[in-house]
Amino acid sequence: MNGEMIDKTSLQGILFDHGRYARIGLPEAVFCEGKSRETLQKMLETYSQNTQNPILFTRLHAEIFESLPEEIQMKYDYHALSQTAYTHTLPQRDKGSVAVVSAGTADGRTTWEAARTVEYLGIKACVYEDLGVAGLWRIVTNIEKIASADVIIIVAGLDAALASVLGGLVEKPIFAVPTSVGYGVARGGETALASMLASCAPGIGVMNINNGYGAACAAARIMNVLFPVSASAKNMVS
Amino acid sequence: MNGEMIDKTSLQGILFDHGRYARIGLPEAVFCEGKSRETLQKMLETYSQNTQNPILFTRLHAEIFESLPEEIQMKYDYHALSQTAYTHTLPQRDKGSVAVVSAGTADGRTTWEAARTVEYLGIKACVYEDLGVAGLWRIVTNIEKIASADVIIIVAGLDAALASVLGGLVEKPIFAVPTSVGYGVARGGETALASMLASCAPGIGVMNINNGYGAACAAARIMNVLFPVSASAKNMVS
Amino acid sequence: MNGEMIDKTSLQGILFDHGRYARIGLPEAVFCEGKSRETLQKMLETYSQNTQNPILFTRLHAEIFESLPEEIQMKYDYHALSQTAYTHTLPQRDKGSVAVVSAGTADGRTTWEAARTVEYLGIKACVYEDLGVAGLWRIVTNIEKIASADVIIIVAGLDAALASVLGGLVEKPIFAVPTSVGYGVARGGETALASMLASCAPGIGVMNINNGYGAACAAARIMNVLFPVSASAKNMVS
Amino acid sequence: MNGEMIDKTSLQGILFDHGRYARIGLPEAVFCEGKSRETLQKMLETYSQNTQNPILFTRLHAEIFESLPEEIQMKYDYHALSQTAYTHTLPQRDKGSVAVVSAGTADGRTTWEAARTVEYLGIKACVYEDLGVAGLWRIVTNIEKIASADVIIIVAGLDAALASVLGGLVEKPIFAVPTSVGYGVARGGETALASMLASCAPGIGVMNINNGYGAACAAARIMNVLFPVSASAKNMVS
Amino acid sequence: MNGEMIDKTSLQGILFDHGRYARIGLPEAVFCEGKSRETLQKMLETYSQNTQNPILFTRLHAEIFESLPEEIQMKYDYHALSQTAYTHTLPQRDKGSVAVVSAGTADGRTTWEAARTVEYLGIKACVYEDLGVAGLWRIVTNIEKIASADVIIIVAGLDAALASVLGGLVEKPIFAVPTSVGYGVARGGETALASMLASCAPGIGVMNINNGYGAACAAARIMNVLFPVSASAKNMVS
Amino acid sequence: MNGEMIDKTSLQGILFDHGRYARIGLPEAVFCEGKSRETLQKMLETYSQNTQNPILFTRLHAEIFESLPEEIQMKYDYHALSQTAYTHTLPQRDKGSVAVVSAGTADGRTTWEAARTVEYLGIKACVYEDLGVAGLWRIVTNIEKIASADVIIIVAGLDAALASVLGGLVEKPIFAVPTSVGYGVARGGETALASMLASCAPGIGVMNINNGYGAACAAARIMNVLFPVSASAKNMVS
Amino acid sequence: MNGEMIDKTSLQGILFDHGRYARIGLPEAVFCEGKSRETLQKMLETYSQNTQNPILFTRLHAEIFESLPEEIQMKYDYHALSQTAYTHTLPQRDKGSVAVVSAGTADGRTTWEAARTVEYLGIKACVYEDLGVAGLWRIVTNIEKIASADVIIIVAGLDAALASVLGGLVEKPIFAVPTSVGYGVARGGETALASMLASCAPGIGVMNINNGYGAACAAARIMNVLFPVSASAKNMVS
Amino acid sequence: MNGEMIDKTSLQGILFDHGRYARIGLPEAVFCEGKSRETLQKMLETYSQNTQNPILFTRLHAEIFESLPEEIQMKYDYHALSQTAYTHTLPQRDKGSVAVVSAGTADGRTTWEAARTVEYLGIKACVYEDLGVAGLWRIVTNIEKIASADVIIIVAGLDAALASVLGGLVEKPIFAVPTSVGYGVARGGETALASMLASCAPGIGVMNINNGYGAACAAARIMNVLFPVSASAKNMVS
Repeated sequence: MNGEMIDKTSLQGILFDHGRYARIGLPEAVFCEGKSRETLQKMLETYSQNTQNPILFTRLHAEIFESLPEEIQMKYDYHALSQTAYTHTLPQRDKGSVAVVSAGTADGRTTWEAARTVEYLGIKACVYEDLGVAGLWRIVTNIEKIASADVIIIVAGLDAALASVLGGLVEKPIFAVPTSVGYGVARGGETALASMLASCAPGIGVMNINNGYGAACAAARIMNVLFPVSASAKNMVS
Repeated sequence: MNGEMIDKTSLQGILFDHGRYARIGLPEAVFCEGKSRETLQKMLETYSQNTQNPILFTRLHAEIFESLPEEIQMKYDYHALSQTAYTHTLPQRDKGSVAVVSAGTADGRTTWEAARTVEYLGIKACVYEDLGVAGLWRIVTNIEKIASADVIIIVAGLDAALASVLGGLVEKPIFAVPTSVGYGVARGGETALASMLASCAPGIGVMNINNGYGAACAAARIMNVLFPVSASAKNMVS
Repeated sequence: MNGEMIDKTSLQGILFDHGRYARIGLPEAVFCEGKSRETLQKMLETYSQNTQNPILFTRLHAEIFESLPEEIQMKYDYHALSQTAYTHTLPQRDKGSVAVVSAGTADGRTTWEAARTVEYLGIKACVYEDLGVAGLWRIVTNIEKIASADVIIIVAGLDAALASVLGGLVEKPIFAVPTSVGYGVARGGETALASMLASCAPGIGVMNINNGYGAACAAARIMNVLFPVSASAKNMVS
Repeated sequence: MNGEMIDKTSLQGILFDHGRYARIGLPEAVFCEGKSRETLQKMLETYSQNTQNPILFTRLHAEIFESLPEEIQMKYDYHALSQTAYTHTLPQRDKGSVAVVSAGTADGRTTWEAARTVEYLGIKACVYEDLGVAGLWRIVTNIEKIASADVIIIVAGLDAALASVLGGLVEKPIFAVPTSVGYGVARGGETALASMLASCAPGIGVMNINNGYGAACAAARIMNVLFPVSASAKNMVS
Repeated sequence: MNGEMIDKTSLQGILFDHGRYARIGLPEAVFCEGKSRETLQKMLETYSQNTQNPILFTRLHAEIFESLPEEIQMKYDYHALSQTAYTHTLPQRDKGSVAVVSAGTADGRTTWEAARTVEYLGIKACVYEDLGVAGLWRIVTNIEKIASADVIIIVAGLDAALASVLGGLVEKPIFAVPTSVGYGVARGGETALASMLASCAPGIGVMNINNGYGAACAAARIMNVLFPVSASAKNMVS
Repeated sequence: MNGEMIDKTSLQGILFDHGRYARIGLPEAVFCEGKSRETLQKMLETYSQNTQNPILFTRLHAEIFESLPEEIQMKYDYHALSQTAYTHTLPQRDKGSVAVVSAGTADGRTTWEAARTVEYLGIKACVYEDLGVAGLWRIVTNIEKIASADVIIIVAGLDAALASVLGGLVEKPIFAVPTSVGYGVARGGETALASMLASCAPGIGVMNINNGYGAACAAARIMNVLFPVSASAKNMVS
Repeated sequence: MNGEMIDKTSLQGILFDHGRYARIGLPEAVFCEGKSRETLQKMLETYSQNTQNPILFTRLHAEIFESLPEEIQMKYDYHALSQTAYTHTLPQRDKGSVAVVSAGTADGRTTWEAARTVEYLGIKACVYEDLGVAGLWRIVTNIEKIASADVIIIVAGLDAALASVLGGLVEKPIFAVPTSVGYGVARGGETALASMLASCAPGIGVMNINNGYGAACAAARIMNVLFPVSASAKNMVS
Repeated sequence: MNGEMIDKTSLQGILFDHGRYARIGLPEAVFCEGKSRETLQKMLETYSQNTQNPILFTRLHAEIFESLPEEIQMKYDYHALSQTAYTHTLPQRDKGSVAVVSAGTADGRTTWEAARTVEYLGIKACVYEDLGVAGLWRIVTNIEKIASADVIIIVAGLDAALASVLGGLVEKPIFAVPTSVGYGVARGGETALASMLASCAPGIGVMNINNGYGAACAAARIMNVLFPVSASAKNMVS
C-alpha cells in the first residue's frame, strides 16, 4: 500500500457495479453529496462522452454543475430544483405511469428528484404538488387522476398526514417519502418518517428521508413485473 | 426528622392545593398511577364523605376501585374504561359544549378520560369515536356536529393525521391529545405527539401523551372566559 | 354524553370501515393487542357467524383464542405462531405469488403474519426462513426460487443485512419488515428499521417494526394492478 | 410531465388555500425559511399589490427583505426582530387582548412573532418580556396585568419553568411556546418542549418549538368563539 | 477458572472497598436492585452481626426484607417507603443540617432515600414535601426554614420547575434529583433531568434520576469541609 | 405454503449453519431468549445426544433448564449465573489465555457468559471481578496478572470508566462489553456503550450491550491467528 | 403594543435581576451567544462605565470583543480562550480555593470559563489541565494538590472517566462539567454528561454540557456557607 | 492562577503522555479537529524537528497544513484524503498485514485514516475499496486476498451490511468502523454503528463513528501479541 497513490488516478478506488441494470433492472447512480468537487467534475466529464450506458447524478448542486465547461454542461439534461443530471434516459416504456404527489412546495427538491428519476428509468411521471391535507379540497379535486396511475409516490414532511389520507382512498401501490421540511419537532424529517411508518392506512412502503430517488426505483421494480422491458432492449443498454 | 413518621398518619406529606379552584378555576385532582394501594384506599375513603369539594381521581384502575368496601364504592361515580371517579361534579354550565373526537376505539381510555373530566368540570361533552382518516367518510359524516361545539378535543395515536384534517376544517379552538396506541415506531405515543406538534393545520394546542385530563382542563380554561361561572357559584364549591 | 353508555352495547364506539375493500382492495382487519379480552371475545363471536365478509384478526394471542368456546374456535382458521385468525380468505387468485424471506427463526411471528395475510388476501405465499447473511450459502441456494416470485417480503432484525444483499440480487418489488428481535442496540427493532431504510440496495419499501400484516397489504396493492380481481368477484365479498 | 417546466412560471406548483380564512378564520401564511431567495422575492412582489387579502410572511430574514426594491419594501410593515411582514392586518377587533409573556430577551424572535401575528389577526397584543422564574419578583409585579388578558401566550426556553408558575396563577387559556434558546441539554428546545408538556399546572396547550405564529393562531381560534367577526366583515377580506 | 466455583462461596466475587470511608468520607453502600434474592439475604445476614462498620442498603424492596428471619430483621432500621436499611448510622454531627424538598408526594421514595441517607451519614435532615410550583404559596410558606439549612436537596419530576424557583431564592448549595414520576413526555425522568440541568437558576448540581442516595453523599462531601469529623471519630468507624 | 405445517415438525424452519466452524472457526450457538419453551426443550433434547459437534446455548434461563427431564439435564454442563449450557467444549488449546475483568458483581451474568464461552471455545479464561475504578487500588493490585493474558475482555456498566483506565495500562488486545446495569441515565447500557466507544484509551473494540458471548468470539478470532488449531483437530469437530 | 417599539431603545425588554447578588450571592451574568452584535456592543458599552456592580460576560467571542472601540475594550479584563469579560471582580475572599481539573486541552474553553468565573466571584482558582485517565500517572502526580482545595470542578468530555477516578480519591465537594469535545458517539457532550451522572463514585453534582460558569456558581454557593462574605462587604457591591 | 497566562506560552497546558508507547505499544497522537489554527501550527512546527519520537496528526485539514511554511510541510508525509501527517513511522514489522476493506468510496477519509495509521504503527496495510454488498460479486472476487491478512478492518456507513457478510466468511480478527456517510436515517453514522454492534456475525469489535485511527490501534494491539517488537527496537523510539 502507498497512501499517496489514491490521488494519482482520478476515479481510482471506485468499483462501478456495471452489471446492476442487467441484474436488478436499475442502473447504478452517482450520489454527489459528500464527494469532492474534483471527483464530481472528473466523473461528469468522463460520463459525458458516454452514449450507451445512461447514468444518473443525484444531489448535484447547481453551483458545481455550472462550474463545468460549457461543452460538458451541454451533454447533460440538468434540472436545478431536483439537483439531477443525466445524458439520456433508459428507453421509455409506452405503458404505465407514476403519480408523484407532494404536500407542499417546500418538498420540491425531493418531489422532482422522484419524478426525474422515474423519467430517467423510462417511465412516465405525473406531478401533483402542494396537496397538503389542511386544505382537503386540493386532494378531492385531483384524486381521480392520481388514482389512475399505476404507482403512487407521496412526498411530505411535518406530520405527513397526506400518506394516510391518500392511502385510504386509492388501491394502487404507494411509496411514501418523508422530507426534512420544517423545524423543531419536524426533527429533520424523523417525524414525517415515523408518521408514515405508523400510518393508519395499510400497505404503504416507506423510504429514507428525502429519498425521492429510492421511491422512483421502488416504482420501477413494480414496472419490472407489470410492463417488463424485453431482454433485447435491456441488452442494448449495458 | 424521623424517617418512620411518614407511615404513621395516612395522608401525611400531602399538601393539597385547596385554593386552586378559586385561583385558576380548576380544582386539584388525584393522579392515581404510582400511588400505593394503601394510599389510594385511604384517600378514596377520606374523600367519600366529602360533600362540598368535588374531587376527581384519574388513572384509577378498576381492580383497585373494586377492592374498596361496597359502601365507599357507592359514593363514587366510577367509569372503568376511562379509569375516573368522582363523588359529584362542579355545577353544570347551561351553555357551551366540548366535542371529544377520537381516531380509533383503541384511544378509548384517553378519549373518555377527557370526556369525563369535561363533565366533571361542569361542561357538556359530546364524544365522536373511531373517525380515523383512513376512512375519510367518517369525518365528513360528522363534521357539522363537531364544528358546532365551542371547543374540540382530538384524541389520536399512530400518525395522528386526524388533527391536521380536522384542524383544516373547523375554526374552533382545538386541543390535541396524542395516545400511546400502536407498536414499533409509534414509540409509546411520541410519534403521534410530534406529528400533532408539527401539524400543517395552524393553531392546535397539544397535550402530553394520553393526557385526556389536561385537554379537558384546557377546554375549561376557555369556558372560564366564554361562559364564566359566577363568583357566588364558585364560592359554593371550595 | 353519558360516560356509562359505552359499556352497555358491546361493540359500540366502533365504526367499521366496511367500504374499505371496495375502495382500496384491502378489507379492514382487527389489531388485537391493547384490546380487552372482553372486547375481543365479543368480536370473535360476532364475526364467527359471518360468511360473506372475510375478516382478519392479527396479534391474537393463543391464550385468548383458546379461552373461546369450542364452537367458536372451530369457525376460525387460527395459526398460533403468527397470531392470526380468519374465518375464510378472499377468493384466491390463480396467478402470482409472494416470497416471504426471513433472516432467522426468531423472526417467525412476523414472517408468518406476513405469509398468512398474503394468503388471506387471496395470494399464494412461499416462505423461506433462516437465510441470515452470516451464512451466505443459504441465500445462494434459494435465490432462484425467491427471484421467481412477483413480490418479495424480507423479514429481518438486528442489522437487517439481508435486505441489502437480496435487494442487490433481484429485480422484483421488495418490501422489508424490520423485527424487534435481539437486545441492546437492536433497540426493539429500531436498528433494523434504520438499517433497511438506509439500505445500499435501491428501491426497497420499508414497513413499521414487526408489521408483517402491512407488508402483505403492500404486496396486495401490487397484485391489484398486476392481476386485478374482477369487479364481480369483488362485489361478492363486501 | 416535463421536469423543466417547473422553472418557467415563477409561482407554479403553489396551490394557495385561499378559502382557509373563510373556512377556519385563519388566512394562509407564507413560511419563508427553506424557500429560495428568488421564490420569496417573486412572492413578496406579487403580494405587494394585494390590497384586499392580507398575507403574512414569517421567518423572513432581514437580509432578504432588505434586498428588495425600495418601492416593494415600502408596501410592507416589516419587523426585523420577529422576521415578520404584512401589507395590512385583518380588521382589528375592538374587544379582547392576548398577553405574550417571555422568560428572557433571548426568546425575542419567537415572542414578537407571536405578538405580531396576534396583531395581524386583528387582536390586541400586550408583551411582557424577561420574566424568568429565577427572579420571581418580576412575575409578581406583572401578574395582575397578565391575568387580565383573555388568552395568555408563554414563550420560554431551557427549563421553561415559567409555564408551570404562570399556569398555577391564572385561570385564562394558556398556550406555551418552547424556544430553542440555550445549549447542551437545552437540545434545540426539546427540553423546554417536554417540560411544558409535562407541566404540573393543568390545561396548557403546547406548540412546536419557536412556533410563535402557531400560538397566535391558537389564540385567534379562541377569539373566533369569544368575539366572533361578523360574516360581512369576514367576506370583505377573502 | 472454573465456572462452577462462583456458586460455592456466597459472597465470592465481591471486593468491598472497605477503605472508602477513610479515603473519601463516604462508606460503600449496597445497591440492591438487580441482585438476586439469595445474594441479598446472604449479605443482610452477614452484615447484621456487624457492629463497627455501618452499612447502608438502598433499593431494598420490602418484600425481600420481610422475607428475612425475624431476628435478622430486628437488627436493621428498615424504612419501607425509602427502601433503605442500616444497622446503625455514622456518628451524628452536632452541627449542620440538610433540607430535603420535594415537589410532590409521588417523589416520596427518592425524597426519603435522600433524607435517610443524610441521617445515615450522621447529618440532620429536614423534609419538606409536596411544594410543587403550581401552588406557589406552599414554597412561600416554607422558604425561610428551607433557606436556613446548610445544603438543600430538591427532588422533583415532570417539569422539575421547583429547582429553578428555589435556586433563585436561596444562596445555599443545592443538589437537584430528578424523579421518574409521570408518564409520556416525562420519559422516565429524562425530562426532569434535562430541565434541572438547563435550569435558569445558576449553580445547581444535578444527580442521576431517582438518585436520592447520591444527593445525600454530595451533601455529605460539603459537610466534610464545613463540619469535618475528627480523625479519631473517623478511625472508630472503619 | 401451508401456515399449519410450521407446527408439524419441531425444528422445521431452522437452517443450522453447520459449516460455520470450518469456515470461521466459531461454531453456531443458540440464543435462547425469545424462543418458546417448547422449541428450546426440543433443541436441548435433540442436541443432548450429540457427541461430535459441540453446541452452546446462551441466555438459557435456569427455570427452563430445570424443567427438563433429569437425564437430559445430566448431559449438559449448565451454569446458572451465566445462563449458558453445553454438552462438551471444543478441544482445549494448551497455550494462551483470556482475562475477563468486570467493574462490579452486578455485571456477573455477562462476565461469566464471556468466561464460559471462552472456555467452550477451547481457551483458558481468568476472571477478575469487582474492579470498579472508584476504588483504584483494586486495579493496581491485579494489573500485572491481567496484563499477562493474551486478550482482555472488560465488562462494565454505568460510566464504564474501567475500559479507559485499563486501556491506558496494558498493550494487549482489548474487547469491552457494556452492561445494562444501573438505572436512569444508565439507559439500559447505552451510556456504558457510548462511553466505551468514546474511550480516551485507543484501540478498544466494543461489543453490543451484555454481549459476553460476542467478546469471547472476538477473543477466539485472535486465538485463531495466534495459536491456530490444526486442520485435523478442526475436522474432528464438525 | 407596537411591534416597532422594540427597536427604539436599545436595551428595552431586558429586566435585569439586580437583586440577585443580595438574594442568592450570585450576581446576574450575560450569556452572549445568540444575542445580536448590536445588543452586545450596546451592553458592553453601557456596563463599561459601571464601577460598582461587577458584571460578567460569558461566551463572548473574541471577534465581537475586538470590534469594540479601543477605549471600551480597555475597561474590560477579557480572556479569549474562556470567552469571558468583566470590568472588575467581586471582593476576593482571603480563604478557600477551588481546583479546576480538566481531562484534555480540548476542554480549555470550559475549563477556563469555570476558573475565570471562580475568580470573578472572589475565590482563588487553581487549574490542572490534561489529566486524562489514559495516562493515570498524571492524576497520581497532582492528586495531593487537587485534594487540598475546598471544592473541585472536573471538566471532561468523551467518556468522562476522570470524574469517577477523582471521585473515588478525594472527599471534597465535586462538580463535574461534561464538554462537547469529540465526535461520533461523543454526541456533543451527551455521552460525557450521562457518564458523569452514572458515575460509580458517589456524590458528584453534574452541570449542563460546557457549563463552566454554572460549576463556578455551584462552588461559590459552598463558599457562601464555608467562608461567608460579611453583610457590609456584600452591600458595597449591589 | 492568572487567566491570562494560558496565552503566553504556546503549548502550555498540554501534558503529553510520552510514556504511552513504552506502556501500551501505541504512541500518543494529536487529534487536530477543534484545536485552533495557532495551536496546530505551533505543534506542527515543534514536532517537525523531532527525529526520534514519531508523532501522528489526525483530522488535519489540508487547508491548515498547506498554510504552513514550505520547509515545515516538507518535513511531513501528509495525505490529504485521510487528513493524516507524520514525520516518520514506527519501525516497520517484516511480518503480518492488515486488510482495510470499505463499502464505498465515500468512506475514503476513514478508510485511509485507518490504512495510514496502520502504516505509521509499522504494519503493512492492504486497502480494498468500494465492496458494498449490493454488488456481492465485488466481495467474492476479493475474499481470498482479504482473508489472508492477519487482521481485517471494515469501514462502512449506511446499513453497514458489509460487516455481517465478511464476518460470516473469514475467521480472522475483525474491527468494524461505522462512517457518517449518508443522510436521513443514516443519522451521522449512528445507524451503521448500531448495525455493526448488532451484527449477526459473531466476534466483531466495533469502533466509534469514523474512527479509522482507533481501528488501526486495535489491530496494532493484536500485532503486539502476534509479532511483538523487540524491547531494544521499542527503546529506540521513545
